[in-house]
Amino acid sequence: MKILALAGGVGGAKFAYGLYHSLDPHDLTIIVNTADDFYYYGLYISPDVDTVCYTISKQASYETGWGLSGESWVVMENLKSLHGPGWFNLGDRDLATHLERTRRMQLGESLSKITSDFCQYWGIQSKIIPMSDNPVQSIVSTVEFGDIPFQEYFVKYHHTPKTKGYSFKGIEKALPNPKFVQAIHDSDWVIICPSNPYVSVQPILSLNGIREALIGKSVISISPIIGGKAIKGPAANMFKDQGIEPSAFAVAKFYESILTAMVIDDQDQDQKLLIDQIGIICLTTNIYMQSTNDRIRLAEEVIQYCEKLNR
Amino acid sequence: MKILALAGGVGGAKFAYGLYHSLDPHDLTIIVNTADDFYYYGLYISPDVDTVCYTISKQASYETGWGLSGESWVVMENLKSLHGPGWFNLGDRDLATHLERTRRMQLGESLSKITSDFCQYWGIQSKIIPMSDNPVQSIVSTVEFGDIPFQEYFVKYHHTPKTKGYSFKGIEKALPNPKFVQAIHDSDWVIICPSNPYVSVQPILSLNGIREALIGKSVISISPIIGGKAIKGPAANMFKDQGIEPSAFAVAKFYESILTAMVIDDQDQDQKLLIDQIGIICLTTNIYMQSTNDRIRLAEEVIQYCEKLNR
Repeated sequence: MKILALAGGVGGAKFAYGLYHSLDPHDLTIIVNTADDFYYYGLYISPDVDTVCYTISKQASYETGWGLSGESWVVMENLKSLHGPGWFNLGDRDLATHLERTRRMQLGESLSKITSDFCQYWGIQSKIIPMSDNPVQSIVSTVEFGDIPFQEYFVKYHHTPKTKGYSFKGIEKALPNPKFVQAIHDSDWVIICPSNPYVSVQPILSLNGIREALIGKSVISISPIIGGKAIKGPAANMFKDQGIEPSAFAVAKFYESILTAMVIDDQDQDQKLLIDQIGIICLTTNIYMQSTNDRIRLAEEVIQYCEKLNR
Repeated sequence: MKILALAGGVGGAKFAYGLYHSLDPHDLTIIVNTADDFYYYGLYISPDVDTVCYTISKQASYETGWGLSGESWVVMENLKSLHGPGWFNLGDRDLATHLERTRRMQLGESLSKITSDFCQYWGIQSKIIPMSDNPVQSIVSTVEFGDIPFQEYFVKYHHTPKTKGYSFKGIEKALPNPKFVQAIHDSDWVIICPSNPYVSVQPILSLNGIREALIGKSVISISPIIGGKAIKGPAANMFKDQGIEPSAFAVAKFYESILTAMVIDDQDQDQKLLIDQIGIICLTTNIYMQSTNDRIRLAEEVIQYCEKLNR
């Protein structure tokens, strides 16, 4: 069974890890959000691509979910002693990724080619593909600070500002990676990982031709909301800011037009009926991924469910 | 007594250290060559400025003369694991200097303003001024590789290629730092540190108006050549490549038109007469700086000699 996974940062990366270590990696393609990408100290930072790659190759910091394990912070400490900005932490090992990627991009190489090479160096056997090689930038409209890039909202302001809306600068002109479109056609199932619907998955789905390519495909989503709360990050607050009660059902509604099936947590059992009623079939299980074993267990359950639905 | 020192990299920095720790630092201005500056991983590297600043503030690696002491190499090791270039070594602490400088330059700040701020953070009380805020690039014409930037000749090819000549791209348009011109006027003595005449001092002297400003000033040079050999680096080979026997006398001839006095090593005693004959007075002493005490001892001797000549 060929799987195409759509992923954002930490939550998406955890589930992608589960898929990677459950499937034959050659049967898995992961499309990663790049709308969070930004420049910092002149370096091109691609937080979601890095988090997915680091997580799958078992290099990610287990404590934070982002960055590398066993990281040192010599450069960052010295940047602070020179009064440089420090709102986004760059570990020494992590910094090498940004430096070499930026160097190659400045020579005209694409983010996807560079990512593919890095994956090879890191021993990753699945295809990890940035959603687009063109710049797209998530802008969060906040009450307090006006329109700000996502990473400033998320990291600099600790995702506390009240939000009014989200837009994706450059999305009209951005082309989806050609391998993304091909992977949709080749896939048996498209899995939307438990990532933030508004700012991690929406940019991927908003790329030219993607919603059209998904018509008639089997699409399943794992809820990033459990018991009305986001597992991590601002997803629940974003639903609230839009006047929507955050819930697994709200996630199902968000993806309604493209969704075949949904995976929700046992404690949201009461929402299964609501989701069924809008024509989306629903698996309930324990979707909270605490350990690395949880990731694999959940991925295996989701794959089995997809296989069952295909029969 | 107001001193203006002209310096390149390691040799110049050692003597500048001696001056800094012998004089009232407010009586010392150091102009540093920037024609070796280059971009590496998109970062603006200013090797001579950094070497002078690190050396004077006692942060330099004593073993190498360049870079920082107690340095770690995590970023560089990880760059190599990503198959990135590794011909120029960047330590983790050093990297912070390049990152923050590049960040500020990209915002339009000048190299001299940034250097001035860094000097303040590092507790340096003398003025350390890049020779120009405009780009100048030393090009070494080699038999083997054609015209290459100085750092490639020096570091990448370990200054082994035979050279045909040297040019300074951008020198016609580059303006000397206004504080440089002012410091010439204000100085009692201009000291040419024991740096490479061809590629460290020549760019400084070639800036618009500098040779003219030096007319009538007292200028003294410390020979970078002892016993026909360069203390460090390619200076002796460059004289040979130009068909000139490397010697203290050759250095005196090189600077003949601007030089008042010259400081040469005891073992080059026989050249004193030759140098005297071209109208340049000459101090012979031990000019080899092994320890930090040697630097201070030599600087004190040179200052005393200058004071004696002024009486």
